[in-house]
Amino acid sequence: MDTHPLQHLYSDTAQKAHSSTIRDLCALVARPEIRSLAGGWPDPEVFPGAELSAIFETLMRERRREIFQYGSTEGVLELRQLIAEQLMDTPEVLAPDSLLITQGSAQGMSLACQVFLDPGDIVLVGLPSYFGGTGAVASRGGVCIGVPVDEQGLDTEALARRLAGLKAEGRRVKGVYTVPNFQNPAGVTLSLERRQHLLELAAAHDLIVFEDDPYQDLCYEGSALPSLLALDREGRVVQLRSLSKIFSPGLRLGWAAGHPGIIRKMTEAKQFADATSNTPSQFMLLEYIKQDLLAGRIRSNRDFYRQKRDFMLKQMKLHFPEAIAWNTPQGGFFIFVRLPEDWDAADLLQESVDRDVAFVTGQPFFVDGRGKNTLRLSFSQASRDDIQAAITELGELLTDRISAEI
Amino acid sequence: MDTHPLQHLYSDTAQKAHSSTIRDLCALVARPEIRSLAGGWPDPEVFPGAELSAIFETLMRERRREIFQYGSTEGVLELRQLIAEQLMDTPEVLAPDSLLITQGSAQGMSLACQVFLDPGDIVLVGLPSYFGGTGAVASRGGVCIGVPVDEQGLDTEALARRLAGLKAEGRRVKGVYTVPNFQNPAGVTLSLERRQHLLELAAAHDLIVFEDDPYQDLCYEGSALPSLLALDREGRVVQLRSLSKIFSPGLRLGWAAGHPGIIRKMTEAKQFADATSNTPSQFMLLEYIKQDLLAGRIRSNRDFYRQKRDFMLKQMKLHFPEAIAWNTPQGGFFIFVRLPEDWDAADLLQESVDRDVAFVTGQPFFVDGRGKNTLRLSFSQASRDDIQAAITELGELLTDRISAEI
Repeated sequence: MDTHPLQHLYSDTAQKAHSSTIRDLCALVARPEIRSLAGGWPDPEVFPGAELSAIFETLMRERRREIFQYGSTEGVLELRQLIAEQLMDTPEVLAPDSLLITQGSAQGMSLACQVFLDPGDIVLVGLPSYFGGTGAVASRGGVCIGVPVDEQGLDTEALARRLAGLKAEGRRVKGVYTVPNFQNPAGVTLSLERRQHLLELAAAHDLIVFEDDPYQDLCYEGSALPSLLALDREGRVVQLRSLSKIFSPGLRLGWAAGHPGIIRKMTEAKQFADATSNTPSQFMLLEYIKQDLLAGRIRSNRDFYRQKRDFMLKQMKLHFPEAIAWNTPQGGFFIFVRLPEDWDAADLLQESVDRDVAFVTGQPFFVDGRGKNTLRLSFSQASRDDIQAAITELGELLTDRISAEI
Repeated sequence: MDTHPLQHLYSDTAQKAHSSTIRDLCALVARPEIRSLAGGWPDPEVFPGAELSAIFETLMRERRREIFQYGSTEGVLELRQLIAEQLMDTPEVLAPDSLLITQGSAQGMSLACQVFLDPGDIVLVGLPSYFGGTGAVASRGGVCIGVPVDEQGLDTEALARRLAGLKAEGRRVKGVYTVPNFQNPAGVTLSLERRQHLLELAAAHDLIVFEDDPYQDLCYEGSALPSLLALDREGRVVQLRSLSKIFSPGLRLGWAAGHPGIIRKMTEAKQFADATSNTPSQFMLLEYIKQDLLAGRIRSNRDFYRQKRDFMLKQMKLHFPEAIAWNTPQGGFFIFVRLPEDWDAADLLQESVDRDVAFVTGQPFFVDGRGKNTLRLSFSQASRDDIQAAITELGELLTDRISAEI
């Protein structure tokens, strides 16, 4: 290890920071022989193809001076207009100054934390929660406190009790972080009643709501519920969106949407975070939307991943023993598995990796350290062959383990 | 103005933050009829051309599954290796784990501040200094204190006195921020003696040195001096580099270099800042370097901008009155002008914009609010016609003003 001789000069947040367990794990199991259900990456099968080659060539011919130059910090104006019109469920109230193009939704969350969090500020998060969101809170010195998640998403009754309890202790809560649709890792969706309840609680306790919503467009049954941003009447919601799951993660395209006051503050933060987003990526997406290609791509992605979900669920039903529980996600990339209470998914992972099969354990998604008996399976990136082989293998391991216990 | 009704929830740094004066000014004078010497943007004339079209097409054919996917947070390994070999003056001590690909050098500075600065930490900066660097310090709640800059760059004797003075007051200084080569905005270069002196002071006072060096490759006379990173023996320097001035700003490519311990901490910070850099940009640059195109582009950029500098200096000599002083930058994009002591460059700017000519005033680059009588002229982006017309116009304004005073 190259320990830095000057680590006593690190900031408080850097002293406390550590590499994401999940990212490290995914890197660890990236060996070619591994059949991995670990990463939440999209399937390259549905990445854009020759149409983007043609678009890039046209841009080089017609807009070379523009696409390689700095752009505005806010992002390409015409792109923000089209996103507001075509990709938001609140177009009527959204002008371009309610949108900021970001380097993926990860940057959106990072900038939102910069605008709202001082060191020590509390943000309530689900148990479990996406590690990118909780990591962004921690990177500003914020403190995450967990609230249970069930089949209807974040338990807002429990949230209400937690808020009251913290208030009684004299502790100020600044916000709530949630992935309302097809949550990573639990795959659950926040019900409409709870969305409304969450916003009532936010108003009563003067909170900001960080709505991290990368999977909205990957809804496999009916259509997505109204977003928190669409239901909000007080400017309390900052919504973080991404094109990584429906277009391309490598192009690093996302946006933040909310009250123009918040967006202006986030834009100021972005000036010193990275000055401006990638210009060719923005123009490629702009052309892609203008040529009416995105809507079709979203539809075909939805069908593609729905079939992969169904395939994996079928395999699980075939191969997993009865003592194992899991949910049927209505969208997104993830199935969350609960092992018997006293099991440790880390032991299972060890055996599983020995058989060249990988997944991620659930515990790193729980800010209170619980969830030892949970694990996340992703059907997004693996091929059908790998899904079938991996689930068969896991099924055998689980069956053996249960037999050994009896 | 859309004032956010919840601005009482903003963080301390967001409350204090404001949009960069310089960026706002550049936006203001972006009207097509304006002949602008304001922005420090590169000239689209020397942006990459058809060779990148060919590279993109090949990548789409051969690496489509890879270029549109997430990449590692550190950046493409082969690219980091080639950068260490070909673009660093310390290749012998630089392994890929000493390099992190960033979204321009702006992100490098932002991540370095995140790793080293707690709210209230002091960073010493030049008077004047690039606003992006001081803005990044402020975005982490750091405090910039100024030290004079003269023809040899940051005055390290003054720095020594300032450090001693602050120590006597019991105030802890965390680091020094400097643009050692062809500084923005003053155009000056830190001499070799001062580079060594700066590192001695850093060792004596246990400081981190933020070496922001976007112009190193645009050296118009001889070759650049050894970097602070190359002279450093203690792992105290984090160097921030950029391809924006020599390749393309829109592709947002830069890197941070330093002790592997620092780079690892910056990588952890980047995981939650934006997860990973743009993948197609990285692969386009990688191919560009592998096809041996970058070295030639740097050489031709150097010749191109040297000629523009010489042209502007010649025009200034022809048209500016004797009472006006300026420097001859050995590289980079900027000429810094000193008006008579009691003048205010903001008045001149007002008159100048009325005549459709723009520049930026020097004062926003001074963290102590001085520099009212200074201004920055950039020869990078304007065409020769615009340079000639703008300098002629400015020369008339200056001459009129001096006549009026006599």
